[in-house]
Amino acid sequence: MQKIAQGLKRRNKTIGFVPTMGALHEGHLSLIRQANKENDIIVVSIFVNPIQFGPREDFSCYPRPLKEDRALCLKQKVDLLFYPTANQMYKMGFKTYVEVKDLSNVLCGVKRKGHFRGVATVVCKLFNIVQPDSAYFGQKDAQQAIIIQRMVKDLNIPIRIRLMPTVRQRNGLALSSRNLYLDKQERQDALCLSEALKRAKNLIKSGERNCQIIIKKLRELIESKKTARLEYVSIVDLENLKPMKKIKDKCLIALAVCIGKTRLIDNMVVKPD
Amino acid sequence: MQKIAQGLKRRNKTIGFVPTMGALHEGHLSLIRQANKENDIIVVSIFVNPIQFGPREDFSCYPRPLKEDRALCLKQKVDLLFYPTANQMYKMGFKTYVEVKDLSNVLCGVKRKGHFRGVATVVCKLFNIVQPDSAYFGQKDAQQAIIIQRMVKDLNIPIRIRLMPTVRQRNGLALSSRNLYLDKQERQDALCLSEALKRAKNLIKSGERNCQIIIKKLRELIESKKTARLEYVSIVDLENLKPMKKIKDKCLIALAVCIGKTRLIDNMVVKPD
Repeated sequence: MQKIAQGLKRRNKTIGFVPTMGALHEGHLSLIRQANKENDIIVVSIFVNPIQFGPREDFSCYPRPLKEDRALCLKQKVDLLFYPTANQMYKMGFKTYVEVKDLSNVLCGVKRKGHFRGVATVVCKLFNIVQPDSAYFGQKDAQQAIIIQRMVKDLNIPIRIRLMPTVRQRNGLALSSRNLYLDKQERQDALCLSEALKRAKNLIKSGERNCQIIIKKLRELIESKKTARLEYVSIVDLENLKPMKKIKDKCLIALAVCIGKTRLIDNMVVKPD
Repeated sequence: MQKIAQGLKRRNKTIGFVPTMGALHEGHLSLIRQANKENDIIVVSIFVNPIQFGPREDFSCYPRPLKEDRALCLKQKVDLLFYPTANQMYKMGFKTYVEVKDLSNVLCGVKRKGHFRGVATVVCKLFNIVQPDSAYFGQKDAQQAIIIQRMVKDLNIPIRIRLMPTVRQRNGLALSSRNLYLDKQERQDALCLSEALKRAKNLIKSGERNCQIIIKKLRELIESKKTARLEYVSIVDLENLKPMKKIKDKCLIALAVCIGKTRLIDNMVVKPD
């Protein structure tokens, strides 16, 4: 892949890159379509990255429908599908990690220790292999996107990060490969994530600025669902992910909820007025 | 610098890169000459990297003879001299570090906590800025070179690392910018580093294979010098830097000695037979 990329660069082709863990859905496809608009060559990677999963997380059962993913990529005119094995990515004696301090141990990083170190490391590796001009990420994984933007700036990586809106079902549920785990009741209860965000938006629209009060109301909404267990709901600064007390500027409202055994996340960027 | 490098790459020029902290001596010049033999364009960076110095180390008094360094680079036909400021390299909100585990907390890393994290991070940044085909390092900083080689492999950085022999004075003293700190008596005592390595080589040549015995003899040699205080002397595996008990394969003999207030290092790779 790296040799192909270097050959393309030598011929002055622009490369658009969509890194994924596969189980592609309309969210991924929206990234691929955007990449297609802006680049000569589109590369999609599919790699379920072992070092970003904790020991009790769903690495082994994470969906891997490679055949369907490949068909979707073909249909979207993806030029190159890169799907390395874990042994190819992490050879004997691997010891190097990229760590984005402060941003990695909050929000999802509280429960998922080491997760964002794994994400930053694999994305840095993939960037070096694929050598894209632009790389496409979804707003759905807001913390991941903020960490990658920080890494790219800090390490002087010459890649433009393009952040695309979360794609949702008509009922509001943010698309996620993990939605595949949900049964019927859970699919119903999973709507509480986007409902909570909508509620927050309305509270802020009607003048509420106290984050504690907003958070309390969202918590109540989520805890009223039978299969839902709130992991966190936070209102944070968009740059440094630090909790806010009063809503002034743009902020990120982010939450993680376990629906049955499935951990889902969602978020929204809100500007007051 | 990054834009210039990208322009050069587009014109299919090969870039040879010699990252330094300045105070250039014949050791650096040997790297530059080698780079000149193997590349179209030679880039030298001069950057005294604050994040690789501990709070009680010599960051502020490290020599910075930029004018002389520039003249030496001109004489060696260096095409580009890159000398950013600390504020340009570490902007507000910098949070990203590259860490090479296991290799960074041994040998020099025991006393110099965070040193090799600082080295790996700045070298990763410089590689992204300068985009060289080949980068040149001295064997004198053996642990640094091993860590950078590991980082380049692990992060799939498409750069060839060229490791060049230590340049020495005729009396054996390895060239170092820190030799400038030594007074006359200290310059004499500083010879104990290379003498100890020679002694080790001879011991191994004459059949000694027990590392503990070799280390004991080197320690005695160094401790006999008035201004010398041994920090460590170790015989380790060349790949993973783990201490060896018996000399079998190729190994690295490395030592750090304080001569007065000046900390010096030296090393030798030894093959038995």
